[in-house]
Amino acid sequence: MLAGTAGDVAPRPAPTDSGVLVVAVIVQKYGGSSVADADAIKRVAKRITEARRAGDDVVVVVSAMGDTTDELIDLANRITPTPPLREMDILLTAGERISMSLLAMAIANLGVHAQSFTGQQAGVITDDSHGRARIVAVKADRIRKALAEGNVAIVAGFQGVNEASNDVTTLGRGGSDTTAVALAAAIGADVCEIYTDVDGVFTADPRIVPTAHKISRISYEEMLDMAASGAKVLNLRCVEYGRRHGVDIHVRSSFSAHTGTLVTDRPLPEGEGLMEQPLIAGVAHDRSEAKVTVVGVPDVPGTAARIFEVVAASGVNIDMIVQNVSAAATGLTDISFTLPADDGQKAIGALTDHQAEIGYGSLQYDDQIGKLSLIGAGMKSHPGVSAKLFGALRDAGINIEMISTSEIRVSVVTRADQLDDAVRAVHTAFDLDSSEGEAVVYGGTGR
Amino acid sequence: MLAGTAGDVAPRPAPTDSGVLVVAVIVQKYGGSSVADADAIKRVAKRITEARRAGDDVVVVVSAMGDTTDELIDLANRITPTPPLREMDILLTAGERISMSLLAMAIANLGVHAQSFTGQQAGVITDDSHGRARIVAVKADRIRKALAEGNVAIVAGFQGVNEASNDVTTLGRGGSDTTAVALAAAIGADVCEIYTDVDGVFTADPRIVPTAHKISRISYEEMLDMAASGAKVLNLRCVEYGRRHGVDIHVRSSFSAHTGTLVTDRPLPEGEGLMEQPLIAGVAHDRSEAKVTVVGVPDVPGTAARIFEVVAASGVNIDMIVQNVSAAATGLTDISFTLPADDGQKAIGALTDHQAEIGYGSLQYDDQIGKLSLIGAGMKSHPGVSAKLFGALRDAGINIEMISTSEIRVSVVTRADQLDDAVRAVHTAFDLDSSEGEAVVYGGTGR
Repeated sequence: MLAGTAGDVAPRPAPTDSGVLVVAVIVQKYGGSSVADADAIKRVAKRITEARRAGDDVVVVVSAMGDTTDELIDLANRITPTPPLREMDILLTAGERISMSLLAMAIANLGVHAQSFTGQQAGVITDDSHGRARIVAVKADRIRKALAEGNVAIVAGFQGVNEASNDVTTLGRGGSDTTAVALAAAIGADVCEIYTDVDGVFTADPRIVPTAHKISRISYEEMLDMAASGAKVLNLRCVEYGRRHGVDIHVRSSFSAHTGTLVTDRPLPEGEGLMEQPLIAGVAHDRSEAKVTVVGVPDVPGTAARIFEVVAASGVNIDMIVQNVSAAATGLTDISFTLPADDGQKAIGALTDHQAEIGYGSLQYDDQIGKLSLIGAGMKSHPGVSAKLFGALRDAGINIEMISTSEIRVSVVTRADQLDDAVRAVHTAFDLDSSEGEAVVYGGTGR
Repeated sequence: MLAGTAGDVAPRPAPTDSGVLVVAVIVQKYGGSSVADADAIKRVAKRITEARRAGDDVVVVVSAMGDTTDELIDLANRITPTPPLREMDILLTAGERISMSLLAMAIANLGVHAQSFTGQQAGVITDDSHGRARIVAVKADRIRKALAEGNVAIVAGFQGVNEASNDVTTLGRGGSDTTAVALAAAIGADVCEIYTDVDGVFTADPRIVPTAHKISRISYEEMLDMAASGAKVLNLRCVEYGRRHGVDIHVRSSFSAHTGTLVTDRPLPEGEGLMEQPLIAGVAHDRSEAKVTVVGVPDVPGTAARIFEVVAASGVNIDMIVQNVSAAATGLTDISFTLPADDGQKAIGALTDHQAEIGYGSLQYDDQIGKLSLIGAGMKSHPGVSAKLFGALRDAGINIEMISTSEIRVSVVTRADQLDDAVRAVHTAFDLDSSEGEAVVYGGTGR
């Protein structure tokens, strides 16, 4: 419709006869803080038009403005403590409707054609799990058409539609990141840029470790472990989606033009960067967990299984587990596990309800713990990593309460008030400190 | 889906063998002031559940909360003075999305099943005129299904979808009233109740005429003339839609249980109310117009036509026209017309651009005018109405500047500062004053 009147930005050029297409297709995702008010929206619009004017095809995924989503949740809570999930999803999706149309207006005001699309219009098809829907397909015909006609396509993040019922759904926390990666996969974008308020993924939280530096390149696997271990800059689901569909994810700041962190498994171009894989990607930490200890458990087969069945049935995911060696005299043992502190009540309630059946003595609950995780694909071939980690913590006078390891990760639980010291000690011990501010972590090997 | 779990409200009973269906189907429309905040929404929810618990099938059309729409317009204006209309429609429809989902939550909280639907989900199909779309069809299958499953169906007013492009549209000012009447027609509702902050349609504005009283029954034709003449309680398009599809419209207060004004052409049941049609339905007034006088127009065929062609081409609708008798000596005349004061600049600009071509002398602009309209289907058979009106205004010392008449209406233009006195004088002269507060105006005759 607009193809013939595309202002000062030409429609996407057709591939040449040799099949070479010089135009890059970019998906950009902006979070709520990047579009918090009219001025912020205008700033983002300027950045988008610059990419468009450089000749790229640009799809933008946008979250609701600032605190809009929280305000809408407050409004619902003033009506009822138990809002039906279907209605909650309709309510919350109003937020992106506002931000996406305002952003399209701001771009149009800069002389570049833009059209906004709801999750439904963009073809984001989900299952019917209101409030935490999963994307099952992306039918991006309308987005492709909008690009072909010379538009920047603005898409509402966080939302989709259940095709069977034509009902609006939301993807849950961090859903806009997943929308962006899913769209990038559907239209075969060259890169999915996730704009945020930090410069990228760091070797540790710079608020705790001033010498932490930005990671310029990291594998999906390491990024997944970083995210699962408390690094909040990228949503776990979005990284998982990116890995499954091979979408390069570029995490960068919306407040600067600096390159951020590229999440990819592609090998570096020859001659660029480090040729050997570094040992460690980074040190993540997490203060949001709590520890439950089930004291005096009969040390007979099946008891531990029953404990975790009961906890799972209450809808709680557990993280680390430690079972003490049983005391020969009593035949009793203790079992400790960690879980999100928000779920503590639920797990304690479920275990209390089944105390007689399981036959344990008592429960202990401790939310003053912290978890430190050391992540690096390189540690697969370096068996000394755990020993070095424990040594660094010992030297810093920090007691380890629980340990868990995977192929590319070692996690330990400490006292919460020792966590910052622990992170700094480990960061230094593994030579991650830098006065330069940037490191190349070359995690992927072309998987 | 919910049919088997419809809580304490049973699904709609099927018609009996004799075809008698005792359930009434009601459409209720609530404006922005009725759902301005959480408490107001809960109040409205209570009223809706009472109708539902009485056994009726209830469809609710709702506007955006309070000033939401104006706030969204402000937000757009902070981005750009010229927002694309398509994006403006996406932005504005966020308002009803919020109010409709909150209302559904509030009803569910009272133990009654409710589901909210966007204009698109409710099957409100429009043309593609963004910002002032017209309804071309209502495919209310989903609403019928929701009712059959025992739900109260909440529908977003003011919005629809252009089926060809799957783009969201808005119906323009007062659009929610039209949505309600269109849905009532589509599902064959027994009545469309328009809830507002006044008790109904009055014989005159009670703020000007303390003795004005509520009209309990009025014909579509009279209501159309009342609305066109400045009575703001009902939107013109909604009354027109109601007339075309024979939908009874009940205008009533959301703050009381009183019966309001029924707009219908059905005859009163035998033995009820007046058996003779009263002369006058009411006195409307309008302060929103201005008068343009084109001075020194050559009194030759075609000149008047050219003036109104120029004004029409500028997109301005004119209302009343007066052409003076031409002065024989000069062959020149003056032509005056009224138009919405908001359009004054546009009309003056267009006429100025064409001054040489039309050949007039000068323009005069006057926005200190008021319009009084006397409306009544009964005046068709009473030729003395105009004379009585002019006499009443003369006795009150009020000068008449322009006059226009139709079959059921006489309108006059006065000085703006004399308008209130004029309305009071005419209200009294036609015996509309009442100390009782209610009158039956039996306008329709079974058309």
